[in-house]
Amino acid sequence: MTNYPIGIDLGGTNLRLVAYSHAEGILDRVDLRTNLEGGPEAVVEDIRRSVFKLDATHSSRELVGIGMGTPGPLELPTGVLHGPPNLPGWDNFNLLSALRNALDRDVHLDSDANLAALAEFALGAGTTHVTESLFMFSIGTGVGGAIILSGKIHGGAHGMAGEAGHGSVWADGPLCTCGSRGCLELYASATAVRRMAEEAIATGRAPRLAAVKQRQGFVDSRSVCTLGLAGDPASLAIFDKVGEALGITLSTLVNTLDLPLYLIGGGLAQAWPLFAPRMFEELEMRSYVYRLVNRRLKNKITIARAGLGTDSGLLGAALLPYPAGSPLQIPAAAALIAD
Amino acid sequence: MTNYPIGIDLGGTNLRLVAYSHAEGILDRVDLRTNLEGGPEAVVEDIRRSVFKLDATHSSRELVGIGMGTPGPLELPTGVLHGPPNLPGWDNFNLLSALRNALDRDVHLDSDANLAALAEFALGAGTTHVTESLFMFSIGTGVGGAIILSGKIHGGAHGMAGEAGHGSVWADGPLCTCGSRGCLELYASATAVRRMAEEAIATGRAPRLAAVKQRQGFVDSRSVCTLGLAGDPASLAIFDKVGEALGITLSTLVNTLDLPLYLIGGGLAQAWPLFAPRMFEELEMRSYVYRLVNRRLKNKITIARAGLGTDSGLLGAALLPYPAGSPLQIPAAAALIAD
Repeated sequence: MTNYPIGIDLGGTNLRLVAYSHAEGILDRVDLRTNLEGGPEAVVEDIRRSVFKLDATHSSRELVGIGMGTPGPLELPTGVLHGPPNLPGWDNFNLLSALRNALDRDVHLDSDANLAALAEFALGAGTTHVTESLFMFSIGTGVGGAIILSGKIHGGAHGMAGEAGHGSVWADGPLCTCGSRGCLELYASATAVRRMAEEAIATGRAPRLAAVKQRQGFVDSRSVCTLGLAGDPASLAIFDKVGEALGITLSTLVNTLDLPLYLIGGGLAQAWPLFAPRMFEELEMRSYVYRLVNRRLKNKITIARAGLGTDSGLLGAALLPYPAGSPLQIPAAAALIAD
Repeated sequence: MTNYPIGIDLGGTNLRLVAYSHAEGILDRVDLRTNLEGGPEAVVEDIRRSVFKLDATHSSRELVGIGMGTPGPLELPTGVLHGPPNLPGWDNFNLLSALRNALDRDVHLDSDANLAALAEFALGAGTTHVTESLFMFSIGTGVGGAIILSGKIHGGAHGMAGEAGHGSVWADGPLCTCGSRGCLELYASATAVRRMAEEAIATGRAPRLAAVKQRQGFVDSRSVCTLGLAGDPASLAIFDKVGEALGITLSTLVNTLDLPLYLIGGGLAQAWPLFAPRMFEELEMRSYVYRLVNRRLKNKITIARAGLGTDSGLLGAALLPYPAGSPLQIPAAAALIAD
């Protein structure tokens, strides 16, 4: 009887599960809407039913572990959520013990950003740029971050490491929801792109963005990206700001961590061609470690797009039940993963 | 026959060596001026002679290892210096192989900031605030930084990790010698304090600082500190800026690394009472991880002064030859260390 884990990705909008096999990739999926109105208990019940359904379908295999990713802030090892902005009403909820009770078995829990990085390390970009350590930004509505050191998630003392998305880029910048000012997330997220597009429209100097807004009733980050790729100057200026902010933060990360690989994933990574030139310009200017290593030493610090796309969090969750370090032994299954 | 290591601290001004014993503390010292005019070869020859002198004096013991700290940028594991600002003329010098040749035995080399952190971890503040991981700033002329993870120096892929002193605090700030803008070092170093004092004098609104300059012919960071402790508003404003910059950088580090302990050492740590209030204010405001852990969880993130003073680099060098992890087994010898 072959073994398989189940990976779960809990988001503010979607609840997704996969049955996964190292040899065969994703075997099966369950996709649900996250029942936010029902509260944490209803969502845990949805998870319970989906796990039993997957396990019943794959009864010829043995379910050896369940891993799950959740939006943060998540305290580890306790598994308590602390006022997660994407899960309103879940403050102080002990997700880990609720899952263990509902499923009557062990569950492994980590932040969605950490699991995306784990999957990239074991199955994605980390297998192309072979390395034991990396930093990864997952950029969507917000900015998640994660550190992998020697093949393991560096969760930090309370499971909260990686939150470089809430480091100040412009220290006197506008207030962030986290309480700080000028955070990376205010310049390099889908939310930030939308806000900057609205600001550009308000100046009256972004006619093509204004036309999109008139047509759709709103302007989303995807439209700004599409216009940017078509050469619209106002949209290009927005992604130039994204690249500037990312470059400033990455230069601090490179100087502080000296890791060989930094990945950018999440929905906004699609705009890579638009923000990457300015990002690399800032890195070259600001990080002497980056310049020294890439220009002078026979070595390289790589900044690259993540490789696994929207399944990275799910795959990382499926890898989580395996003992620390074991992802290194997982055969590179990237080619087998459904896109 | 008891064993002992020799620790060496190479600085831009002084070259210091100690014979060290875990049980007895510092046994002996050699203090020299760094012969910068003579170039790297002359300095290596001074080191060779001093090591042989110490070893001859302690011939009843067995010299089991030699560790040395040097200003950076130092490439590891090669041991090559890359344009170190404090060692002009040493660019591209392979210090490690020169030392190994001169001494005809193995030598362990690391950056001075990493060794100060290692000593604080094993013998200093790390033994008071018991922890396996910490970040440490060594603030003097410049700002050194170092990360200890699970009892070991996190040197990074090229030995250059820890350089958060060259992260941008105010991204559009003045140019730094490293090529970037608005680095921490431009606001929180002895050099920065002197520059800000000169700027304050130039405005005509810092009469007590101006009087010091008239008397001495210059204004040094120690005088600014003394005046600040005596309540001089212009000097207090300077250290408020130091605290603001440190707080901004620490908030990014706390959010990114989630370590339990952050230390501030080096000469400028003497001004702790002057910069700490603003530093903590910024941390409280900017780091939600800091607030969450210290206010809500039954846990603590500690920011504290380093404990070992000016010998920390030397002691770290003496610890360096021991296998990774062994500092954990060293008896807390802090009380035995000469001040």
